[in-house]
Amino acid sequence: MALKAQVLYDFAAEAGNNELTVKEGETVTITNQSIGGGWIEAQNSRGEVGLVPEDYIEFSKPLPSFSGAGTTAPTPSVGNVASADLSFFDAYAPASAPAQTQASNGNDPWSVWNTDPSGGANNNNWASNPEGTQTGKSAADPWGSVSQGHPQAYQGPGAEDDEWDDEWDDVKSSGGYAESESGDGGAMQRGGAQGSSMKISLNKFPGFSKSGPDLYLLCKQLAKGKERLLIYMGEVGPVWSYPETQLDCVVADPKKGTKMYGLKSYIEYQVTPNTTNRPVNHRYKHFDWLYERLLDKFGSAIPIPALPDKQVTGRFEEEFIKMRMERLQGWMTRMCRHPIVSSSDVFQLFLTYKDEKDWKMGKRKAEKDETVGVMIFSTIEPEATDLDPVEVEQKCEQFSRFTKAMDDGVKEILTVGNEHWKRCTGPLPKEYQRIGKAFQNLSSVFTSSGYQGESTLTDAMTEAGKTYEEIAQMVAEQPKKDLHFLMETNNEYKGLLGCFPDTIGVHKAAIDKVKEGDKLVATSKITAHDKVTMAKRVSTMSYSLQAEMNHFHSNRIYDYNRVMQLYLEEQVKFYETIAEKLRQAHSQFTTM
Amino acid sequence: MALKAQVLYDFAAEAGNNELTVKEGETVTITNQSIGGGWIEAQNSRGEVGLVPEDYIEFSKPLPSFSGAGTTAPTPSVGNVASADLSFFDAYAPASAPAQTQASNGNDPWSVWNTDPSGGANNNNWASNPEGTQTGKSAADPWGSVSQGHPQAYQGPGAEDDEWDDEWDDVKSSGGYAESESGDGGAMQRGGAQGSSMKISLNKFPGFSKSGPDLYLLCKQLAKGKERLLIYMGEVGPVWSYPETQLDCVVADPKKGTKMYGLKSYIEYQVTPNTTNRPVNHRYKHFDWLYERLLDKFGSAIPIPALPDKQVTGRFEEEFIKMRMERLQGWMTRMCRHPIVSSSDVFQLFLTYKDEKDWKMGKRKAEKDETVGVMIFSTIEPEATDLDPVEVEQKCEQFSRFTKAMDDGVKEILTVGNEHWKRCTGPLPKEYQRIGKAFQNLSSVFTSSGYQGESTLTDAMTEAGKTYEEIAQMVAEQPKKDLHFLMETNNEYKGLLGCFPDTIGVHKAAIDKVKEGDKLVATSKITAHDKVTMAKRVSTMSYSLQAEMNHFHSNRIYDYNRVMQLYLEEQVKFYETIAEKLRQAHSQFTTM
Repeated sequence: MALKAQVLYDFAAEAGNNELTVKEGETVTITNQSIGGGWIEAQNSRGEVGLVPEDYIEFSKPLPSFSGAGTTAPTPSVGNVASADLSFFDAYAPASAPAQTQASNGNDPWSVWNTDPSGGANNNNWASNPEGTQTGKSAADPWGSVSQGHPQAYQGPGAEDDEWDDEWDDVKSSGGYAESESGDGGAMQRGGAQGSSMKISLNKFPGFSKSGPDLYLLCKQLAKGKERLLIYMGEVGPVWSYPETQLDCVVADPKKGTKMYGLKSYIEYQVTPNTTNRPVNHRYKHFDWLYERLLDKFGSAIPIPALPDKQVTGRFEEEFIKMRMERLQGWMTRMCRHPIVSSSDVFQLFLTYKDEKDWKMGKRKAEKDETVGVMIFSTIEPEATDLDPVEVEQKCEQFSRFTKAMDDGVKEILTVGNEHWKRCTGPLPKEYQRIGKAFQNLSSVFTSSGYQGESTLTDAMTEAGKTYEEIAQMVAEQPKKDLHFLMETNNEYKGLLGCFPDTIGVHKAAIDKVKEGDKLVATSKITAHDKVTMAKRVSTMSYSLQAEMNHFHSNRIYDYNRVMQLYLEEQVKFYETIAEKLRQAHSQFTTM
Repeated sequence: MALKAQVLYDFAAEAGNNELTVKEGETVTITNQSIGGGWIEAQNSRGEVGLVPEDYIEFSKPLPSFSGAGTTAPTPSVGNVASADLSFFDAYAPASAPAQTQASNGNDPWSVWNTDPSGGANNNNWASNPEGTQTGKSAADPWGSVSQGHPQAYQGPGAEDDEWDDEWDDVKSSGGYAESESGDGGAMQRGGAQGSSMKISLNKFPGFSKSGPDLYLLCKQLAKGKERLLIYMGEVGPVWSYPETQLDCVVADPKKGTKMYGLKSYIEYQVTPNTTNRPVNHRYKHFDWLYERLLDKFGSAIPIPALPDKQVTGRFEEEFIKMRMERLQGWMTRMCRHPIVSSSDVFQLFLTYKDEKDWKMGKRKAEKDETVGVMIFSTIEPEATDLDPVEVEQKCEQFSRFTKAMDDGVKEILTVGNEHWKRCTGPLPKEYQRIGKAFQNLSSVFTSSGYQGESTLTDAMTEAGKTYEEIAQMVAEQPKKDLHFLMETNNEYKGLLGCFPDTIGVHKAAIDKVKEGDKLVATSKITAHDKVTMAKRVSTMSYSLQAEMNHFHSNRIYDYNRVMQLYLEEQVKFYETIAEKLRQAHSQFTTM
């Protein structure tokens, strides 16, 4: 019997990819579910049959997950993409994604611990699918504002890890389509996905989902491992202990590798830490693995920013690789700058493993690590005296206010910047071009006058016209030189800020738990001693949050100083060059 | 019984002027036709009653013409005007005027001598109504391209001369509404109107309308008057004889005068020629009188550019007067620069009359002048030998090609410039403003962080934000500083070029006449001697046209050199200032 489905978003088929163009609200008949790679074969009312992104349609009954998905997927469509430039930053702008894809816990960052059905349902899915399209969507924007692109056709839920990642290393099969969705969509998905994945790691512990950080707050004995994360009192307040020399690394020299006798291809990046100066090779899937480990281990205490989305922009292989590398570099630099993350075993392993065997061993060890989720707080040791719960709550409130406000500010810049990008690459240069043409046309009319002594004027006017054509080109190319970095930095911060609701959520939950301490004692759910312990541990959590905020602030000040300087520097050059060109053109005219 | 009418164009009512907003195609009921001043009281389907520009609606039966029109008119609307700047140059752009308002002779400049009914019908109208809405419209663009604004609400057809001119001197009753129509609309109207008015002057002579320049070509004896317009052979070919010292004058010091015990007010301008340095006073109506005289006398040989339209832009009295004065100055300067016009009795009278009596006498004399229309050629004496008709025709063709091509080129600049003006005063500054606001907003979020050592960054970001707000303002104000003059000059040339089809048309007609010379002799319509005379006289006409073209070219080269220099100079300043401001902003950020 035929399975009907509802189309959620418009999709423009790309010629030659046997895709099917569908409109939002249209009903289609599913003719083949086992295409894989996030694609589905469907038939529309006119009997036309073609491939449609799975996530663009809503089924009456759930789909089975496909193993080996994607290997047979067609090149994704770029049909709905205007231009590389536009589409790239379209991603930054709050897209008009349907609100219903926002799960309740996505809409209210502070209700993150409510057992949300969709959220819950997604956890298993998530466990087997690090990309977590569904989860990503449901919690796409933890602030609740709708700022997510269309779901991405190119993510088969439950697709077996190694398989889909090869697909993702294989540029050819990604390329264009990604453009219209990439950047923000991805970043925010990971931002959201992280919230969910954090739940997963916590879910490893029974009864957690109900009581959040209880596991840490109430566990009888904190096993003293070799891990000790110290917090000192600095000038600005609680701070992590920073290493003597700042760790850093260079991501470079992407190489295309193949496996299975060249049947599958992937990109390998060379990562060289400044400590050993010895390069190690990593594929995107390894970065992704590292991200998952850091998320599990530190996510409750430290916002782990999203990895650059798999589908970064770039119509062509070179562009694609360059862009992904640039963003991986940015992500690695941020991780290196974090004292806790950079000094962790798993991060060190990633940067300095000696050989395949070493890597495999380290991998297994990291995956077996039990000190994850809220248990990370058990390794944190503040040197300062305990804070009373009231102060803890005040700090927590302050941080959530600030991060929310900054998230709004960053999004405003991204929106405005995106519009400015469009104008600079669209109408504005066209206009300067037409001004240039108009001058040149009039000049050539003058040349036809047959009047003597015309040439000085006509040459000068032609020159002026050409100058405005040059200005047109300059205007169109400028955003790549300055706005690009302003957008990238703000986009990075948008992703980072998207992680805070979850991080702060853990603290909120802990605070609430402490608040009901008396009641719990009264009903003898816990002992009086437990209650004292909880207060002590919530104080530790607060110090950790403060240390993290101070780390965030110092980095923020550095980053925004840098990016603003770079932006203004390039802007100055831009306007000076134009002025110079025009001065040149002006000198061609004779005063009579 | 109720008179129904059809709305021709959208009209947005201005608040407080009891106007009525109407949409194109809407049917309204006329509730009061005797408002005057080009306004009508109408009621829409929703029963709302208000004033609508008379020319915006189409009646089933013609309206009576109102004497004293406008005296009771409300302040005309600026409701459909976005901003003074926009509306001003909207006028330059080819507006979407209904094509049917183009009379056939308007569509084909070279059929200008066909006796066109509408053209003919308008002549009388024109005689009694120098503003000639109808005529102006019908021949609005002699090149045939539709480039006329909406008809102007503020012209009571047949309004008695002295009346309307007082009205037009009285700024209050003009002002705002004019904006949306002025400039080009007016200029081209006069350009077109001139074609018609030339016919009038020629029509003074029986049988002319059929045979164009016959009067001159075939008149038995050319009365040798004191007037002798010599043409010399210069380097560039035939040239007028230029005076030793270039005549020039300054139009300044507009004063509001009143008459009829202050019931009527008008503006008087002080005109001071560089010859006597003695100022004389003139009202707009006097300039208009001069224009009509020059048109009658020289129009066949010399394109007399349109006077600045009565309804020049300016929402406020000061703006209005300033703008009109600027344009009157431009017109006078151009007339002064013309050797034939500037040395004519009527022009000298205008600049140097001693007293009221002197003025009145000179006026009467000028109005009695018989050497007008094509008879001006009878006063022209070329020093060179006669040209053969073939060469005459080639020259004529060349000039018409060039002037047509230049007219297109000029219009292109006006269109592009108009769009650029809109962008610079509209979306662009808004965008820079939003960029500035975005920086400042993020800065104030940062200030709320409670983190130490924040101030340097936040101050710098606020500074940068303010800088972009300043840039926004600069962008919005720049067009007034440079584009304005580029537009004014091109608009002036557009008006001038609009006169050429008529001037060249006279020559075409003459050439055709000579061509049929043999036939005329054969049918003994003319004698063999007449035929020789015709050829000789057409050669004289050709020399005059060549002298005029050479005069046009040398002025054109001077004008465009000047305006391009001025434009580029201001553009350079503009971009340099922006660069400097941004350099300032950049220096606020600290490198760490």
